[in-house]
Amino acid sequence: MLSKAKIKFIKSLQVKKYRKQEQCFVVQGAKSVQELLTSGFEVTMILGTTDFLRQLSPNVKAEIIEVSEKELSDLSEFQTNDSALAVARMKVKEGILVTADEFALVLDDIRDPGNLGTIIRTADWFGINKIIASEETADFYNPKVISATMGSFARIEIYYTNLAEYLVNTTLPVYGAFLHGKDVHDTDFGSGGLIVIGNESRGISESLEKFITDKITIPRYGKAESLNAAIATAVICDNVVRRKFKV
Amino acid sequence: MLSKAKIKFIKSLQVKKYRKQEQCFVVQGAKSVQELLTSGFEVTMILGTTDFLRQLSPNVKAEIIEVSEKELSDLSEFQTNDSALAVARMKVKEGILVTADEFALVLDDIRDPGNLGTIIRTADWFGINKIIASEETADFYNPKVISATMGSFARIEIYYTNLAEYLVNTTLPVYGAFLHGKDVHDTDFGSGGLIVIGNESRGISESLEKFITDKITIPRYGKAESLNAAIATAVICDNVVRRKFKV
Repeated sequence: MLSKAKIKFIKSLQVKKYRKQEQCFVVQGAKSVQELLTSGFEVTMILGTTDFLRQLSPNVKAEIIEVSEKELSDLSEFQTNDSALAVARMKVKEGILVTADEFALVLDDIRDPGNLGTIIRTADWFGINKIIASEETADFYNPKVISATMGSFARIEIYYTNLAEYLVNTTLPVYGAFLHGKDVHDTDFGSGGLIVIGNESRGISESLEKFITDKITIPRYGKAESLNAAIATAVICDNVVRRKFKV
Repeated sequence: MLSKAKIKFIKSLQVKKYRKQEQCFVVQGAKSVQELLTSGFEVTMILGTTDFLRQLSPNVKAEIIEVSEKELSDLSEFQTNDSALAVARMKVKEGILVTADEFALVLDDIRDPGNLGTIIRTADWFGINKIIASEETADFYNPKVISATMGSFARIEIYYTNLAEYLVNTTLPVYGAFLHGKDVHDTDFGSGGLIVIGNESRGISESLEKFITDKITIPRYGKAESLNAAIATAVICDNVVRRKFKV
């Protein structure tokens, strides 16, 4: 039975302030809930239709509530939710270690939740699992972000921090896309480093430019002024793995 | 002076049925309106703030109406519009010729307007200006599509048709991404061809698979099940141009 208090609690988690207060977030849709259950997140509550709950492992340790499709879709403000919803506890990272033989993304104010979700999904495709994000970057636990990751949220570590303070201390190469950098097709990315992705409107902040050790450029053959931030991330990551695993 | 009838007319163009009936569409935002004015589209009406209109060429042939920022933002349902809005006449393509020395995209039911807009912007970056779209693909003239193209709509030709009937007649190579195709890094795309991009949920339709002459794959090093359609487009296009202009 889904009480009014629970409905209110779940809806409150759409707002960052309440997520922070409760240290909880919502995952919607059967596929994403399944991914959540195989991840390291502590799940506190699962709402599912009869069909969904029938397939659930009996070992799942969470409060389980059977709901109708109607109840689920009433809880979902931005997508049609098919058969499940879960509440899990946030993990707050106090730091993230990037070793010299791996790549990590550094997100410089990615504001759009859809873009952040797509960047996470893309990073996960290319085997990049660590993200350092500026404090102005969209909240990882925003339901729109979780949804756009298509389940990849479960495999990514993200750490929000002041990027200038973070980058001043790194000894890794720091790549960033600029208009007049080295052609990304000809760049040898080596075995590891940080890839800075700039904000949707203004690109990489002026205050971070001095930390970029390797300016790169995605070659343009047409006339668009710029690429979407998630698109640029994908093209850079594809060139990184093309070099790292094949040359 | 912006009459109630004009407000009603402009708002009606958010709906496909009325766009079709009027053969007109709306472009929002100063940058996009500027791109529109340098394109081949016939512009029938420009709404702008005092500042925007001051910079307008006196040669512009369209009805010009000075409006306040408030009036503009009231007309925009999905974005904050800064200083301009235009109405232009649609161009209905009765066909599109792709020659053997160029690439074109073939969109197999791209449903999301944001994805379509991002695909158009990405194609324009890579110098691909022709798109053949299935009839189920989102409408090019949807304001969300126009907005997501970031001005690239002005440089792209798009033709909606039955893809099976279109592909059966082509003599060009037809590339499409599948899970077990040839590594896109090692594919020689030659000088031209058609690149089929599958639907967001189901990929390339079974009914179109027989027309694919070259199955390709974006290599995966992580665990995401799939890539967003616009992301896959970008990675494929980047590999196409890397080969076409450099090897």
